[in-house]
Amino acid sequence: MSCLKAVLPCCLHTNGIRLTEITPGAPENVDAYGGRTWGRKCTLYDRTVDGPAGVCHLPMRPAFCERARQALLQAARSRQYTCHERGTAVVIQGPRFSSRAESLMHRQWGGHLVNMTTVPEVVLAKEAGLSYAALALVTDYDCWRENETSVSVSEVLAMFSKNVKKAADVILDAVQILGADSDLSYLDKHKKNRTMPLAHMEGVTEIRIYSRRMRNRTGLKSRVEP
Amino acid sequence: MSCLKAVLPCCLHTNGIRLTEITPGAPENVDAYGGRTWGRKCTLYDRTVDGPAGVCHLPMRPAFCERARQALLQAARSRQYTCHERGTAVVIQGPRFSSRAESLMHRQWGGHLVNMTTVPEVVLAKEAGLSYAALALVTDYDCWRENETSVSVSEVLAMFSKNVKKAADVILDAVQILGADSDLSYLDKHKKNRTMPLAHMEGVTEIRIYSRRMRNRTGLKSRVEP
Amino acid sequence: MSCLKAVLPCCLHTNGIRLTEITPGAPENVDAYGGRTWGRKCTLYDRTVDGPAGVCHLPMRPAFCERARQALLQAARSRQYTCHERGTAVVIQGPRFSSRAESLMHRQWGGHLVNMTTVPEVVLAKEAGLSYAALALVTDYDCWRENETSVSVSEVLAMFSKNVKKAADVILDAVQILGADSDLSYLDKHKKNRTMPLAHMEGVTEIRIYSRRMRNRTGLKSRVEP
Repeated sequence: MSCLKAVLPCCLHTNGIRLTEITPGAPENVDAYGGRTWGRKCTLYDRTVDGPAGVCHLPMRPAFCERARQALLQAARSRQYTCHERGTAVVIQGPRFSSRAESLMHRQWGGHLVNMTTVPEVVLAKEAGLSYAALALVTDYDCWRENETSVSVSEVLAMFSKNVKKAADVILDAVQILGADSDLSYLDKHKKNRTMPLAHMEGVTEIRIYSRRMRNRTGLKSRVEP
Repeated sequence: MSCLKAVLPCCLHTNGIRLTEITPGAPENVDAYGGRTWGRKCTLYDRTVDGPAGVCHLPMRPAFCERARQALLQAARSRQYTCHERGTAVVIQGPRFSSRAESLMHRQWGGHLVNMTTVPEVVLAKEAGLSYAALALVTDYDCWRENETSVSVSEVLAMFSKNVKKAADVILDAVQILGADSDLSYLDKHKKNRTMPLAHMEGVTEIRIYSRRMRNRTGLKSRVEP
Repeated sequence: MSCLKAVLPCCLHTNGIRLTEITPGAPENVDAYGGRTWGRKCTLYDRTVDGPAGVCHLPMRPAFCERARQALLQAARSRQYTCHERGTAVVIQGPRFSSRAESLMHRQWGGHLVNMTTVPEVVLAKEAGLSYAALALVTDYDCWRENETSVSVSEVLAMFSKNVKKAADVILDAVQILGADSDLSYLDKHKKNRTMPLAHMEGVTEIRIYSRRMRNRTGLKSRVEP
């Protein structure tokens, strides 16, 4: 399975927070994002020794791999899971959640989801020429609704535990769908973006759909090992 | 008086700048904020040696202590000072003031006030389980109005000098109001948020309602000493 | 010519990206900006040894020198180049271009242009008491339009090469216009903002209208040498 890593290094966002009226629990296919982060390394072209030379002014539309996005969507629909076709994630710095004023502001900006990851992962993946898509698991409504209490970590984790299997199903099915593709020309298109050696990525030998910490908390075992 | 420090480490914002049509000079009770800062230490859970362990995903609604906010409001009304019940502060990085385009943008985002502090103070106070509220002293209209000249530091300081006594009155009265409370259960609620030792805060033995620098400039003497 | 450096350290933005329906290729006179950057040194009052003392809370309306802006506009109109009188630039961190969600967000905020420079240059110039204006050379439409493909670096450079002479003409003409001014009182007004020694700037002996790197790429030779 490890050979598929370049096909779908799909990112599962555990803390997707819904900015619109959609029932939490649904996976969500992210297709755009707006960054509100700082201090994160946001390019591989960072003038480190042995790093790639030059500056990379990378176009970010589309941000995610359309083929991988469609595979995720097909996988979710085959299992009759609710899964939105597209959504814009506002990526906050964290670790705190948003204030109510920020939550309303993120809605005004056109955001559908809030999380603390996605940037710079999506940027680095595109610089590296990888097929990259993101699936967000909606856990709650943030704090923008009038009569909603604020999100707490325990509620986020409870909702996550309840639905993580759905997201894992979707990702694993999507990997199978992509693995069965005979036309891989979309991968070549991504690679044209890649102008750097990927030597330091060769050590990656597994897909982890959730981190060890999260796995320990939720009591689930990783289903994808090398 | 020093024992009250955990009850109301109230923050006086000297440079609250009004984004809506409200007469400068009025104190303003802040109840929400939107951060536009970077590079500020925004969590106590920062992996320093002897620091608290883990990551703190802190809910930020409400951002401020409702009991302390109400005490500030009651104090202001008792003295018949105009004081808005709530306001959203947009916290800019500074030290420069906003451009006109930024000022209009902050209004669009729902901001009522602009200042350069509040974040991360409000976040750190909530992580530490403190009752924290903020009172902003409005000094000017920023530069969003069509026929307004831009704010200057000297005008800000002049307006501040003229009205700082009002704000000091309100804060000191609010401390008395909170000190007279028999039901302190709201403090326990805050402490439930606090999961860290506060040892490094024990050295704080006074409430300063404005900094030495500001006091020297305004010619007022600090009224609250240990 | 070097004595003119304090009169018009005009900035040519090669990567002005249009957020509204204006034909690329036109120079654009920037009069406002909104910063979305982090980690950039944004004040000369940064507590470095031998640096200026204190904190500089600088008013930023107007952000640019009105006299220099008018000279640029006059120069462009004399040559019958299309040049917008004013525009608000949203300054992104880069090096990547915006996602579509970000591009739409920048439009919502009131932006007319996107680039990766201008902040902190305009702030530092104003702190230093310089007459500073900016001319943006619009290269493309970013990625906000429904049927637009995303911007690529090669297209940006092609459009830049095609139009850079226009921008150079405008800047050089504007320098002549300003050099012919008999009333230089606007410079004194700028200098009142300057409260710091400019010793470390005395080494600047030339105006470069585009960087060596950009000149090499476009095949043009710098026309302004000391």
